[in-house]
Amino acid sequence: MSFHIPPVDKSRQPEIQDNIDQKTKPPGALGLLESLARNIALVQNKVSEPLTLNSPIVLAFAADHGIAKQGVSIAPSDVTAQMVQNFLVGGAAINVFCKTNQCDLAVINAGVKLPILLGSQTSVRYLDLSVAPGTLDFSECAAMTNEQLQYCFDAGRKAVSQLVSDDCDVVAFGEMGIANTSAASAMLALLSGKTAIDCVGRGTGIDDRQLQTKGTLIEKARQRVIGTYADALEPLVILREVGGFEIAQMTAAMLTVAEQQRLILVDGFISTTAALLACRLYPQAQDYMVFSHCSEEPAHKDMLALMQASPLLQLGLRLGEGTGAVLALPLLRNAVAFYNDMATFQSAGVKV
Amino acid sequence: MSFHIPPVDKSRQPEIQDNIDQKTKPPGALGLLESLARNIALVQNKVSEPLTLNSPIVLAFAADHGIAKQGVSIAPSDVTAQMVQNFLVGGAAINVFCKTNQCDLAVINAGVKLPILLGSQTSVRYLDLSVAPGTLDFSECAAMTNEQLQYCFDAGRKAVSQLVSDDCDVVAFGEMGIANTSAASAMLALLSGKTAIDCVGRGTGIDDRQLQTKGTLIEKARQRVIGTYADALEPLVILREVGGFEIAQMTAAMLTVAEQQRLILVDGFISTTAALLACRLYPQAQDYMVFSHCSEEPAHKDMLALMQASPLLQLGLRLGEGTGAVLALPLLRNAVAFYNDMATFQSAGVKV
Repeated sequence: MSFHIPPVDKSRQPEIQDNIDQKTKPPGALGLLESLARNIALVQNKVSEPLTLNSPIVLAFAADHGIAKQGVSIAPSDVTAQMVQNFLVGGAAINVFCKTNQCDLAVINAGVKLPILLGSQTSVRYLDLSVAPGTLDFSECAAMTNEQLQYCFDAGRKAVSQLVSDDCDVVAFGEMGIANTSAASAMLALLSGKTAIDCVGRGTGIDDRQLQTKGTLIEKARQRVIGTYADALEPLVILREVGGFEIAQMTAAMLTVAEQQRLILVDGFISTTAALLACRLYPQAQDYMVFSHCSEEPAHKDMLALMQASPLLQLGLRLGEGTGAVLALPLLRNAVAFYNDMATFQSAGVKV
Repeated sequence: MSFHIPPVDKSRQPEIQDNIDQKTKPPGALGLLESLARNIALVQNKVSEPLTLNSPIVLAFAADHGIAKQGVSIAPSDVTAQMVQNFLVGGAAINVFCKTNQCDLAVINAGVKLPILLGSQTSVRYLDLSVAPGTLDFSECAAMTNEQLQYCFDAGRKAVSQLVSDDCDVVAFGEMGIANTSAASAMLALLSGKTAIDCVGRGTGIDDRQLQTKGTLIEKARQRVIGTYADALEPLVILREVGGFEIAQMTAAMLTVAEQQRLILVDGFISTTAALLACRLYPQAQDYMVFSHCSEEPAHKDMLALMQASPLLQLGLRLGEGTGAVLALPLLRNAVAFYNDMATFQSAGVKV
């Protein structure tokens, strides 16, 4: 599958910057909010017209991971389905944050092990795009087949076309999947050329012994992939070999959002892995990305640095779900508001 | 003037922590939002009842500084009044952010040099508590008299009693005053025992020559104060000698808000100086403070470290006005929302 992603038109950047510099504040005094406003203006290709953030939505992709059976997470795979059920009835952090920040939410089953039950309590949109009940254990073999990967790419596009409204300006990406920090760390190792030990962390809180197991298994997988495939560093090979269904679907969904020239709001370690893969496939996709936060997972910082990304928040989060993305949404709204509504030196009669 | 500030009741902290740990997320996974929720619960002395953030307001104190005549800022003193006029008609960053974040705003004239004109365009509450048209130049003599300082303390209390509604849960503090980073740096030097050079920065963007002038003048003031007064390190002496009317009024207003057991939302470098002074006078006042952000002014970080404060945002802001405080308000709302509304492991049937 191919994507047709136009780069943003940077020729208008000086005009946009001039608009920002005419506002009644010293140049640069709003820090990251200024670059954020500039990026939003570039994505929306607007100089004088108001920027908009209509109908924001979080797409939360959920799937299970074969490697979970090795005890690399604080919780068993069954918890993925339990948490998806929690999302669907509105009890999780992502639900609460979406409500607080007036953001829509949809949950995509990309391959959860246990069945998801819909009932009268279900209050959140749900789309079943399940590939299989979890990947295989990537420490032993490829996480998925080529066909499953292709299905994921079709599914990611489908998720966007079915769930994102026409007037939507910003799509945030979150996930749920027990052991998916292991997949993300393995992908980072292959994408960055680092060894596993530099890419693993405690996820949601594993102990020293589990951390060691996690590092050993990821290093084993890294060596398997490098030792087996001549094209071991290709993004799609990495996704197939050590990825996850939710990560593959997110990657394709991000590329679809970029193709539609909307803003992509990236969440934490897993979501950023999908963003990195998307940018390795289509570098111009990064023009559409806003990196919401740097999480507590140590390698997240390195992953952001690989993309020269400046995340908006550093709150020590390590939850995923899209929580960091939704927490950053008010900053996007404030960036748009200052760009649209602040007085200029001339209009306010301020003479510096 | 004395303040009666009760420390928060920390005996309920284990119950509050237990509430947080029962939510459907790994322990600590919401990072700074968890400590924020805990602090708000302690201030509101609530365990099971919902936390509230009713009627938030920014009090923006404005005043001029005699030292401005030395060219230590990018703009002349006249801009203080021009920006206050901009606040009053809704054109400044603080207006836009208050509107975006549903926060009230009131402007207090603590001692602006030029007259403030009210007219049909005035859309923001304004309180004239002007002490004098600016302080004296603290590089030459005391910034204010003991009587003026006393007036500021009465005025700070009055501002809170007149502007803050009974149901208000959180009061944010902002300011406007050309050259007030010079006053803040001088106060930090005396409060921290550091020399001027470690306490000065470029404020809203001065050049190398201005930075050198600023450092030299502040060091001169520091040596004058230490060489003249046996009680040179007393907060009230520091305020009188090198402070500002807006900073003194903010200090008293913060202490009044703490006395009323409401949350204090601290903004940037100047606002944090007032917070530090308030805590030196009444250490328990810090129980009520939330530090919204760490600004681009290098010494802000050191000032926050003096109080072991963990600011919520790092956005490279250097504007003041209360802008960082209002930008952090959504994080407070999200902290309260997760504390009040997230499902527990038991209620959601999640078994980790």
